Amino acid sequence: MLSLASTTDPSWVQRVERRLDHLLLDHAHCEKKAASMAINLIFRYQTRPFLLRWLSELAREELEHFELMLTELDRRQIPFTVLDPSPYAGELMKHVRRGEPDRLVDTLLVCSLIEARSCERMKLLSEHLTDEDLRELYKGLLASEARHHRGYVHLTAELVGREAAVERLRELAEIEAAVIARAPRDQVRMHT
Amino acid sequence: MLSLASTTDPSWVQRVERRLDHLLLDHAHCEKKAASMAINLIFRYQTRPFLLRWLSELAREELEHFELMLTELDRRQIPFTVLDPSPYAGELMKHVRRGEPDRLVDTLLVCSLIEARSCERMKLLSEHLTDEDLRELYKGLLASEARHHRGYVHLTAELVGREAAVERLRELAEIEAAVIARAPRDQVRMHT
Repeated sequence: MLSLASTTDPSWVQRVERRLDHLLLDHAHCEKKAASMAINLIFRYQTRPFLLRWLSELAREELEHFELMLTELDRRQIPFTVLDPSPYAGELMKHVRRGEPDRLVDTLLVCSLIEARSCERMKLLSEHLTDEDLRELYKGLLASEARHHRGYVHLTAELVGREAAVERLRELAEIEAAVIARAPRDQVRMHT
Repeated sequence: MLSLASTTDPSWVQRVERRLDHLLLDHAHCEKKAASMAINLIFRYQTRPFLLRWLSELAREELEHFELMLTELDRRQIPFTVLDPSPYAGELMKHVRRGEPDRLVDTLLVCSLIEARSCERMKLLSEHLTDEDLRELYKGLLASEARHHRGYVHLTAELVGREAAVERLRELAEIEAAVIARAPRDQVRMHT
């Protein structure tokens, strides 16, 4: 359903739980970056009206989740600080083809895969974290991530048709699985 | 209350009403830019936590208004197209001092003045436009713009104290009045 080409082992939760502060902080930064990405796409593709409203609604929802994570950090007295991001998103973006509409297609599908991986990992967090409050928090976020994943794929299908969108999604999902498999294990992030 | 150093003549409404399509389109772009500005500030000043939540909430509200304007454009069959912005915001930003915290202070205050001028002009639109639906739309937006203006001033006061904030606001308001006075009259925009 999430189009991912690999599955995260549930032991990932035990690994990231050791630096829960970094995981939560990274998650807050991820929500901020997701909002910013949507707004960048609104600016870059303002002549494609079918994208604008959906991206604007998405950006609002990502910002709401950013605020939710700020509250969670506050509650746990974890200061909001700058954190080196994992190379994950940057590595994926390297595979975006040049020239339009390929560039837009690939950007939307990379975004859809980031949302899918976040969803998959949040599901694990919602099931296996020791902290009950956090399990509930992640349970509450799951559905949005899945919806964002589907939304990005749907936009791509409107652009190039369902079949072409799904075919490229499969190729990029293989790349995503390879990128996440070689993510640095010494960092605790949502996508390592 | 809005800290502006000049007042727009109500005849401005008759001038912009001749190219209502440009006014509405420019307004949509302004909301988008306001959201983007808030998100840029979140990224630039992420080590100043007191800014983050307010700017995130602001960005969400600007995006809601962007979507409202997209609906209004749709309803009037005005296509959402690229529009050369008026030089207004760019001219104001030239007066932002370098070095921190001056740069942040001036940026927040310039944003507060842009919100104030938008509020002043939307009030005129809500009173003098021929189109009743649009008068209502602008009446509905007024309060937010005034609140955004005050919010930006309040953030500045948290940073450097009330007195210093108000003093610099007065200086920048004089500059803003000069910039809007020489805005090109041949374009129809929210800030010309």
